[in-house]
Amino acid sequence: MIHVGINGYGTIGKRVAAAVDAQPDMTVVGVSKRSLDHEAAAAVDRGFDLYVPDTAADDSGGSCDISLTGSTTALIAESDIIVDATPAGVGADNAEQYAQTDTAVVFQGGEASTVAPTSFCARANYAETVGQAATRVVSCNTTGLARLISPLDEQFGVASVDCTLIRRGGDPTQSNRGPINDIVPDPVTVPSHHAADLQTVLPSIDVMTKGVTVPATLMHVHSLTVCLASAPSVDAVHDCLREERRIELVMSAYGQDTCADLRESAYDQDRHRGDVWENCVWSESIAVDGRSLSLLQAIHQQADVIPENIDAIRALAAADDAETSRQITNDALGVGLTGSLA
Amino acid sequence: MIHVGINGYGTIGKRVAAAVDAQPDMTVVGVSKRSLDHEAAAAVDRGFDLYVPDTAADDSGGSCDISLTGSTTALIAESDIIVDATPAGVGADNAEQYAQTDTAVVFQGGEASTVAPTSFCARANYAETVGQAATRVVSCNTTGLARLISPLDEQFGVASVDCTLIRRGGDPTQSNRGPINDIVPDPVTVPSHHAADLQTVLPSIDVMTKGVTVPATLMHVHSLTVCLASAPSVDAVHDCLREERRIELVMSAYGQDTCADLRESAYDQDRHRGDVWENCVWSESIAVDGRSLSLLQAIHQQADVIPENIDAIRALAAADDAETSRQITNDALGVGLTGSLA
Repeated sequence: MIHVGINGYGTIGKRVAAAVDAQPDMTVVGVSKRSLDHEAAAAVDRGFDLYVPDTAADDSGGSCDISLTGSTTALIAESDIIVDATPAGVGADNAEQYAQTDTAVVFQGGEASTVAPTSFCARANYAETVGQAATRVVSCNTTGLARLISPLDEQFGVASVDCTLIRRGGDPTQSNRGPINDIVPDPVTVPSHHAADLQTVLPSIDVMTKGVTVPATLMHVHSLTVCLASAPSVDAVHDCLREERRIELVMSAYGQDTCADLRESAYDQDRHRGDVWENCVWSESIAVDGRSLSLLQAIHQQADVIPENIDAIRALAAADDAETSRQITNDALGVGLTGSLA
Repeated sequence: MIHVGINGYGTIGKRVAAAVDAQPDMTVVGVSKRSLDHEAAAAVDRGFDLYVPDTAADDSGGSCDISLTGSTTALIAESDIIVDATPAGVGADNAEQYAQTDTAVVFQGGEASTVAPTSFCARANYAETVGQAATRVVSCNTTGLARLISPLDEQFGVASVDCTLIRRGGDPTQSNRGPINDIVPDPVTVPSHHAADLQTVLPSIDVMTKGVTVPATLMHVHSLTVCLASAPSVDAVHDCLREERRIELVMSAYGQDTCADLRESAYDQDRHRGDVWENCVWSESIAVDGRSLSLLQAIHQQADVIPENIDAIRALAAADDAETSRQITNDALGVGLTGSLA
């Protein structure tokens, strides 16, 4: 059993904890959270031991009667692997504390790539992280791109990628974010940071990315043009993507017209929190003109990196190879079992 | 003087009427409107003679006390040129009636390209429409693309264009439209119809377009990659675009971060209805990698085709050449005089 601690219990941390809990070869040591609020209470109700930062007693206000197990320092010491799911930038602040222990660390994509010796996407570069002391799971958007490009590159050869990212403004609970009724170049400079981030896991691919942020909270959408080394048929592209359990071919003709439809589908399947772990590629959007492939895909920003975090834990623990780890993760969570185009 | 009638007094019609009224060589015969509502009253208050369709007496309800001048049939007969600004598809229904008169017609981009012998963008193909009996001003998005691609093609050669259109869901008064909190592939098929539409005015350009619709009402945004025949510097691209009065180079560094900022700028300049006639190209987004040019631009869907409608009137009347017409139109409206990067 791999003993896993989760430091940070927000959007990503709570999902990683549940996903670790679902694995046959992992156990949750506990979760650490600064604010002793309704989310902390839910963690304890769920059976997770709750730890707090050493400095948190002053911050929590003490108004909640929530049972605490110990300090974050203790959680780190008791864990083989820590998943740092603290807010972007805080992970880098925590890095020194982790480095003084024998506990390996999974950082999130909000950190700079320099936070760890490798950046990680299970489909792109699992082996690089095997046996390392730390890695960084790339962001939701980069994960979505790497998962798509890797099989295309293997099967057809990818010369270059041009992607416009239509980014959600914030997650549903981030009521302090915008925009309202606007379309915002984000960043206004080209290429956006996503291009360099993708190259941390797929260094040989020529990438252009541009980003705009819009008033939506459910998913990101990617508009892609991929220049291939060969000229496959549309059917061959379908077949290639259908092999990938973390890619779902969705269809407008099947009522999957929008991001909201995709999330509704996940709720209808009783998925926890309506999570969509898979890239959702619209089948009707797949177009091939010679060596140029175009398509549209949606990415659930809260969920797609969760299976990657699980695989990153196994890679750090040197427990399995990439394919085995992905299969265990997929089976345990139910990834790619919707069969919407079966 | 060119005597111009405007059939349809909605988003486009009301703006065309005001723009015709501002031209030194045109006069507004009158405007035709089916619903005798607050917009019709405003037209009369503004001094435009109001005509109604022959069938409108039954539809209007008769509750408004608005002074009528005559029927749409009379308006057509009294005009040298009719601008058909009726809802998409109605223009095609009206085409037969126009064809039975000597009055030339400007249709809008909501109609199929077969509605008229030419499609029109003043910067791309003015001469093709000179002396014709009808033309169709291409849609707001196509106009925005054609205006940008034409000078780039002249100066650097354009081999191909790849554009993702982030489309506004509706105009501010279209409260029956969506989406709310969603990102919608629109259309889900690739390429979107914009590619074929652009080729109606620039037939030699290889075009890929993909569209998504988002919860915003202010402007469209285009994310473009243009493959050029040469490899210009970023400065050369700036210089090329700065020559175009219907392209405005806007800057995040100047506080022009979002579509809302661009519209606010137009209001601050006392532009009627806050209209932005120009393509707004974000200066910071212009990037060149070899022969590949990338940039982001915003298009005010209610306004950018207005100068084109005016030039289309002159082309049908064979009154001026393209450059002269554009200059008269620009001067009369104040296009390209903001000098935000002067």
